Amino acid sequence: MATRILRAVPCDVRFPTSRTLAGSDAMNRDPDYSAAYVVLETDHPAGIAGHGLTFTIGRGTELCVDAIRLLSVHVVGRTLEDIAGDMAGFWRDLVGDSQLRWLGPEKGVVHLATAALVNAVWDLYAKLEGKPLWKLLADMPPERLVDCVDFRYIDDVLPRAAAVELLQAQLAGRSQRELEIRRDGYPAYTTSAGWLGYSDERISDLAREAIAAGFSHLKLKVGTSPEADLRRARLLRKAIGPEAHLMLDANQVWGVDEAIAAMRSLADVDPWWIEEPTSPDDVLGHQRIRSAIKPIRVATGEHVQNRVIFKQLLQSGAIDFCQVDSCRLGGVNEVLAVLLLAAKFGVPVCPHAGGVGLCEYVQHLAIFDYIAVSGSLRDRVCEYVDHLHEHFVDPAQVVRGRYVAPSRPGYSGEMKPESVRAYSYPEGSAWAAQAASM
Amino acid sequence: MATRILRAVPCDVRFPTSRTLAGSDAMNRDPDYSAAYVVLETDHPAGIAGHGLTFTIGRGTELCVDAIRLLSVHVVGRTLEDIAGDMAGFWRDLVGDSQLRWLGPEKGVVHLATAALVNAVWDLYAKLEGKPLWKLLADMPPERLVDCVDFRYIDDVLPRAAAVELLQAQLAGRSQRELEIRRDGYPAYTTSAGWLGYSDERISDLAREAIAAGFSHLKLKVGTSPEADLRRARLLRKAIGPEAHLMLDANQVWGVDEAIAAMRSLADVDPWWIEEPTSPDDVLGHQRIRSAIKPIRVATGEHVQNRVIFKQLLQSGAIDFCQVDSCRLGGVNEVLAVLLLAAKFGVPVCPHAGGVGLCEYVQHLAIFDYIAVSGSLRDRVCEYVDHLHEHFVDPAQVVRGRYVAPSRPGYSGEMKPESVRAYSYPEGSAWAAQAASM
Repeated sequence: MATRILRAVPCDVRFPTSRTLAGSDAMNRDPDYSAAYVVLETDHPAGIAGHGLTFTIGRGTELCVDAIRLLSVHVVGRTLEDIAGDMAGFWRDLVGDSQLRWLGPEKGVVHLATAALVNAVWDLYAKLEGKPLWKLLADMPPERLVDCVDFRYIDDVLPRAAAVELLQAQLAGRSQRELEIRRDGYPAYTTSAGWLGYSDERISDLAREAIAAGFSHLKLKVGTSPEADLRRARLLRKAIGPEAHLMLDANQVWGVDEAIAAMRSLADVDPWWIEEPTSPDDVLGHQRIRSAIKPIRVATGEHVQNRVIFKQLLQSGAIDFCQVDSCRLGGVNEVLAVLLLAAKFGVPVCPHAGGVGLCEYVQHLAIFDYIAVSGSLRDRVCEYVDHLHEHFVDPAQVVRGRYVAPSRPGYSGEMKPESVRAYSYPEGSAWAAQAASM
Repeated sequence: MATRILRAVPCDVRFPTSRTLAGSDAMNRDPDYSAAYVVLETDHPAGIAGHGLTFTIGRGTELCVDAIRLLSVHVVGRTLEDIAGDMAGFWRDLVGDSQLRWLGPEKGVVHLATAALVNAVWDLYAKLEGKPLWKLLADMPPERLVDCVDFRYIDDVLPRAAAVELLQAQLAGRSQRELEIRRDGYPAYTTSAGWLGYSDERISDLAREAIAAGFSHLKLKVGTSPEADLRRARLLRKAIGPEAHLMLDANQVWGVDEAIAAMRSLADVDPWWIEEPTSPDDVLGHQRIRSAIKPIRVATGEHVQNRVIFKQLLQSGAIDFCQVDSCRLGGVNEVLAVLLLAAKFGVPVCPHAGGVGLCEYVQHLAIFDYIAVSGSLRDRVCEYVDHLHEHFVDPAQVVRGRYVAPSRPGYSGEMKPESVRAYSYPEGSAWAAQAASM
């Protein structure tokens, strides 16, 4: 029996995180971590639904919600079996909508909304198969995985046949790596200590706690002033000791020359990478920064809009780490494309997370990447931020600095109904209470 | 007396152009040319208002309208004098909104909405100064023009001081070129003959009419099948003769290798340029295509999201023509940045137009570029499409293949109130009638 998608019910869910400055950085000073969330209701007798989201930071979430509504005509009325039978075609229907495409193409609000719908479809697919998403993907033969990818605009660098070969080369080790991940989990790093809005003392305390909790990689937000950046980075280095990996994140505030100068002055604290040193659109800028600041490595991705920019960042040797975002890219299908591109160029994937639901999502992607695509954990760590997990039905779990492989069916993005109700914007109790007190 | 902006009133205006297939191409099969339109009402005693728009093609226009509403907090309540006193700072306020920026940054729906607001502010500014926009700009000293530009992310290639120098070098010839443009107009080319939905016969007829009307440059949409493309291109070449310039436009349907193969087969008709041969995001792809198909030249821009991508297209030698779009970029300020970048690299600017209001806008930009930035007409033609002008208060006029320099104060994007009423979506009479007949 085919399962038909009957309705797409989108919702604007916002958490008032700006009240605590958790999540603050040089570019995003006061984020209210939010999600344009969508539930795909079906005719499945057990009531199975697909839940998906895209991550936003407050104002404008309603634009993504409305875009989900507009794009849902490509989803509603179809059966999961029909969609799964031609995943690349389904994805092309969404990104190629003959009028909505103009508003991107494949970027910005419309692409974020695409991610929510595509992620919801994969959640439904995994639930119907009774597997966590990573396992659903890791069980697919190479041809089947490649069938999910739209090779338009990337086949000059990665033809379909080469992608199949690349996956075939990792087939033999899949089950061994799966056992290993189930046993040991996937390495995580934490950003929770280093928000820009935190005091020096708080950063030191949180960093020591993180090391005690088993983390070996920590990230600090920079990009205020050279003096403040250096002072805070030295403080963090002192708190974590010389062995731990210290990553820095400028969240795009610098120009190219500025980034080079800034990183020369920060070299002192032995940073493992500098993240988002400049505009995510600037492939050639990243290339120049990377060659100028070696051996400090360059990372970017949370704002890289689609596989076309990633293709260029990889083919030009502009980045050392590929930080795919589960919601910035157009959902699982496009993430697959980028994992394949990264593997082709031998660049480690260290997914972006934090926010709302991103940790829940990217653990699946990182684990699948290890099992079936890259086959390596070298220089791989998956971001972790320890807030807002309590709102999810199957929250991400990190133990001794490692993500525990999810075992419940689905893609882990399903929120608790009571959380959706309370944080619905503007009518939820969390916001109504604020409005009343103002 | 300062003029204060009291309200921003956005409106969703759509024209049912998909009924005739005017505007159809390989990627955009059924556009309903539309605008997210905004009126900035002021306290000016004569009731002067600023009118601005961003161009869209139907569904999703409401997303831009809502984004205009969200962004208007950075405009409403301010005086024009305050804004004009720090144009780059004003622009940074819009694109740097601490929560909305996440949805781009500087791309997609939010950036399109930015364009509408910025264009409305410039319209107001020009009206208050009693000048057409091109003249307002052409009268500004170099430092003042450069003060309008946000150099973040481009100063590695074009530092502020170099931009000032570049403008200073053209100061001496400004008045001579202004006289020339007022007398002769600015060269235009037409796309009206070559829509993809048009029959062979219609294309030939329209092409002969265009040549008779004084056009020397015509554009044809390609990207269906190699055979159909070649047949139609030969037909058009035959209709216009060997001397006229024939441009081709693939609207992004090809991958990089596909584009190279397609253009080798189309070389036969001696195309002057191939426009949008692949994804507008693919700087390195354009670079490869350009070097592979010489001497056919490469053009792109209508979907180039911001100055960062243009910077790279120009610095890497990926394009021969820079097709700035007045609404895809974040309005006049960012167009200025791109005109300066193009001048620095000696690449001719041939603005994208058509749609709704784009011809009205880009005539100002092309004329200003000639008078004050590039100082050259060599290889410059400004796109013209002959529909929907009747809805504008000060419509673009093309005579004998040349744009007549606008003389009325403002940026020419003001629509007739009765057109706004009739085509407001969905409540306007043009749409209500359709709904009733369905």
